[in-house]
Amino acid sequence: MEDIALTLPTKGSRGGAGAAGRANVRKVLCAEGVGGSRLFCGTMTSLYQIKIENQGSVLRLVLLPHPRGPNLSTTSTCEEVSASLGSSVRFHAFWLRDNALDALTRDPRNGQRLITLADLPEEVKILNAHFSISNSSFPPNAESEIHSAYLELPRDRSLCPDLPKVAVTLSPENRTFEFPLAWLLENAYGRVRPESCPSVRTPKGVTLWDSNQIETLMATTRDLETLKQGGEDLRVWLESVWRFGFVKVSGVPAESGGLFSIVDAFGGFVRETNYGRLFEVRTELNPTNLAYTGLGLQAHTDNPYRDPAPTLQILSCIENSCDGGESLVVDGFAAALRLREEDPHGFHLLSTYPMRFEFKGAKGVHLYARRPMIEVSADGELVAIRFNSRSAASVRDVPFEEIEKWYAAYKRLSAIFDDPRMTIRFKLAPGEAFIVDNTRVLHAWTRFSGVSGKRWLIRTGFSQCTRPLKAM
Amino acid sequence: MEDIALTLPTKGSRGGAGAAGRANVRKVLCAEGVGGSRLFCGTMTSLYQIKIENQGSVLRLVLLPHPRGPNLSTTSTCEEVSASLGSSVRFHAFWLRDNALDALTRDPRNGQRLITLADLPEEVKILNAHFSISNSSFPPNAESEIHSAYLELPRDRSLCPDLPKVAVTLSPENRTFEFPLAWLLENAYGRVRPESCPSVRTPKGVTLWDSNQIETLMATTRDLETLKQGGEDLRVWLESVWRFGFVKVSGVPAESGGLFSIVDAFGGFVRETNYGRLFEVRTELNPTNLAYTGLGLQAHTDNPYRDPAPTLQILSCIENSCDGGESLVVDGFAAALRLREEDPHGFHLLSTYPMRFEFKGAKGVHLYARRPMIEVSADGELVAIRFNSRSAASVRDVPFEEIEKWYAAYKRLSAIFDDPRMTIRFKLAPGEAFIVDNTRVLHAWTRFSGVSGKRWLIRTGFSQCTRPLKAM
Repeated sequence: MEDIALTLPTKGSRGGAGAAGRANVRKVLCAEGVGGSRLFCGTMTSLYQIKIENQGSVLRLVLLPHPRGPNLSTTSTCEEVSASLGSSVRFHAFWLRDNALDALTRDPRNGQRLITLADLPEEVKILNAHFSISNSSFPPNAESEIHSAYLELPRDRSLCPDLPKVAVTLSPENRTFEFPLAWLLENAYGRVRPESCPSVRTPKGVTLWDSNQIETLMATTRDLETLKQGGEDLRVWLESVWRFGFVKVSGVPAESGGLFSIVDAFGGFVRETNYGRLFEVRTELNPTNLAYTGLGLQAHTDNPYRDPAPTLQILSCIENSCDGGESLVVDGFAAALRLREEDPHGFHLLSTYPMRFEFKGAKGVHLYARRPMIEVSADGELVAIRFNSRSAASVRDVPFEEIEKWYAAYKRLSAIFDDPRMTIRFKLAPGEAFIVDNTRVLHAWTRFSGVSGKRWLIRTGFSQCTRPLKAM
Repeated sequence: MEDIALTLPTKGSRGGAGAAGRANVRKVLCAEGVGGSRLFCGTMTSLYQIKIENQGSVLRLVLLPHPRGPNLSTTSTCEEVSASLGSSVRFHAFWLRDNALDALTRDPRNGQRLITLADLPEEVKILNAHFSISNSSFPPNAESEIHSAYLELPRDRSLCPDLPKVAVTLSPENRTFEFPLAWLLENAYGRVRPESCPSVRTPKGVTLWDSNQIETLMATTRDLETLKQGGEDLRVWLESVWRFGFVKVSGVPAESGGLFSIVDAFGGFVRETNYGRLFEVRTELNPTNLAYTGLGLQAHTDNPYRDPAPTLQILSCIENSCDGGESLVVDGFAAALRLREEDPHGFHLLSTYPMRFEFKGAKGVHLYARRPMIEVSADGELVAIRFNSRSAASVRDVPFEEIEKWYAAYKRLSAIFDDPRMTIRFKLAPGEAFIVDNTRVLHAWTRFSGVSGKRWLIRTGFSQCTRPLKAM
C-alpha cells in the first residue's frame, strides 16, 4: 500500500473561538491518496505518522515520528507519556467486530446494539485494513482536527464527519467495517500504565481544587437567562459541573420553585424523595426555638443514608441578610488524595471498609445505606465521597485490630475537610444558587446571627442527572 | 459483681404467628438481680451465659456455655461459626462514646448525631460496666427475645424496650451510657471471619434462587388492595423485594397510571427520567413496522447507562393476549456466583474492570456510565449487576493481554443468564405487575406472535426506593 502524501499546514490556518482550550489538538494533514496504510498528522511544532499493521487477529496502529518533523514533546501526565511517540494501540479482530459502528450492528438513532453476543462469529480475522478518507469531505489541502487518544472528541461528533477512517474487512463475514480513526484512538484498550502513575486516580476530566482556586470557581457563574439560551455558555457551565463538581448560577427567581429552572437548563430531572420535590432550609432567628438557631454545620455530603445517594444538589438563596451564614465547599476528591498522601494505610481502611449511614424520620421513614466513605473502583478510580458524621451509624465492618487506625483516619479526613486551605468560602446572595456534585463536593455553612431577627432562607432540590459530561 | 439468677423457660411458652421464621431466636431468661456482670440466655435446647469484662479501654462480652445446659449446636454458616460458644465481641471505649445512644449524642427524633468528631474526648476509658435490666419492664419469669448477633432485630425496635441493657460509665466525662445488649451484638465489629468463608458474598438477608424456586417466588404475589392496608402482608412483601429482588403484585388497575399505586404502597418515589414518569413498552403486531415486531429480548438490567442506575423497576401488564410474550427473570447474583465457580479469573476480570454503557436518544440526550458489570465492594460483598449488551459501549479499561479472557467471561456470563435452569418464566396477565431490583435481577421477554394483530402492552415506571430492608 502506498503512503498518503503530506502537505505542511499553513501557519495559523486555524483559530478563533475555542482555540485556547484546544492546545493539544492535532491536525490531520491533507492527503492525496486513498487506501494507504500510513497517515501523517501534526501540529505547528511536531509531525508524526500513524501506520496500520494487520497482524491477522490484531489490528495495530503505530505512532511514529515523521522523518521531516521534530519529535512530539512528551508531557508529564501519565496518559500523555503512554501516548508518546513509538507507542501503539492494538485491537483484537473480535473486539472490532463486536464494536462495529455500522447500521446493522448499531441502531443509528440511539446507538443501541442490534446484535447479541451469541450473534458474533466464534473466530474473527482481519482480511484487510487501510485508511479510508472520503475525497469529497476531505479534499487535498483541507484540514481536519484529530484529538489525541487522550483528549476528548468534539462533543458533537457530527461536526467532524470528515475525519479519516480505518476500513477493516473481517472474516468470516467478509464485510468491511469503518471506524473513525479518532474513535479508535479514544476507545483503545490495553494501554500500559507507566509505573509512575498513582494506583488511585481521579476520573478523566476532573480538576482538583482548593482555596487557591476561588477565582476560577467563582468564574463558573452564569446568569440563568444566558443558560436558558444554550450555546457555548451552557456548554462551559455544564463542563464545569463535571470538572469541579461545583458551579454557581445567578439571576435565579428568588422564590420557592426558582431552582427548577436550573434543573431544566441542565437537562436534569428532579429526584423526588420523602422530603418532596423541594427541601426547605429555613432558619429563623428566634431565640425561643433552639433548633433553629444559626449554628454552623460542618462540611458534609447530603443524604448518604440513601442508596443511591443523591448526585447533583442545588442550593438556592431566597434571602440572606443576616451576619455570617456563609457557604463553604470542599473538594472531597482533593481531600481524599491528601489523606492518602498523609496516611496511606488510613486511606486504605476508609476506602476498603464500608461506613453505615442512617436516618429515622417521621411516618416510618427509615433510611439506611452501607457504603464506603471513600469509594474507589476496583481498578483504582475515585468514585464517590460520603461524609456526614451526623447521620453516621455505628461502623461494624472494620476488623477489631484496625479500628483505632480507622478512627484516626476518619478524624484526619474530617480535619482536612475543615482546613481553610481546602475550602472555598462565599456568601450566597438572594437570586444566587450553586450546584454541587454530591458524590464529590462537600458543602457547609458557617454560624450566623442577626440582632434584628433577620432570616436566611435556602431551599434545596435534588436533581437526578444524566451526567452527560462523563460521556465525552 | 454477682450473677443474675437463672430460671428455666417453660416449654412452648412462645409461638404463634411468625414463630416459624424465628427459629434462631434466643431468649433472655428472667433475671432477679440488677447490676450483674453475667446474664443467662438460652433456647429450648441450649443455654449459655454472657459475661461482661471491663478491660479498661475495651469492653468485652464473652459467650460461655452454661454449666447446667447443653452446648449450643454450631451450624455450618460462616457467621454462626464465629458466633459459637467461647467467642467474644469487643468494643473500644472510644467507639462506645462515639456511638452512644443517649439524647445528648443522638437526636431521639431522627437518630441524627448531635456531636461532631471534634467533640469527642481524646482518650476514653471504661470506669464501670454492668447489665442494667429495668425491673418494671423485665419482671421475674418474663421472657424477652434476643436475636443472635447475626440475626436481624425486630423491625420495630420500640416493640422490645425491655431487652437487657449494658450500662457503661466512661471517663473523662464520668457519664453512664446504656446500650441494649441486642444492639451491641448486632453492631459488634471486628469479628474474625473463618478461613472457610468465601471472599465474595451476598448481602445479608439475600436469598439466591434459580428455576427451582418458581413456586416460592410466585408466592410473593400480593393483591394491591391488601398491600394498601399495610400490616403483615405488606411487611412480608417488602421483605421479599430485598430477599429475592423480585415480587409480584395482582389487582393493579389495567391503566397507564396503575403502577403508581404500587409505588405508593411501597413508600417509594417515582424517579423521573427523560422518558418521563412512565415508559411505555407498547408492541403492536403491525408487519409494516419491523421495529415493533414481537422479537424477544435477552435478559438484561434496565438503563445501565444511567449513573446511578435505576434501582427498583415496576413492569405492569395492560394487555397480553398474544401467543408467547412471557416474562423471564434471572437472579444476577446467583449467576455471578456461578460464573465465579466456573471461571474465577473471569469473575475477577468482570468485577475489576469497568464496563461502559451508552445511549444516545433524541433531543441531545446522551447517557453514559462507566461501571463494572459485576460490582463487588472493596470488602467482598456483591453490590450490583449491570448487563445489557444492547447498550454496551466498547470496553476500554481491560488490559490488552486480558481482553480475550474478559470476553470469554462476558460470553459465559451471558450464557448463564440464558440458561433455563437459572430463569423463572411466567406470563403476566392484565392487572398483574412485578417489581425487580434492577441492581440484581435481570428481566427478559420471549418472542411472541398474534395472527389477528393482538397487542401486548407493558408499562414501566422507575421507582426510586429507600431500600428500607437494608436497614434491618
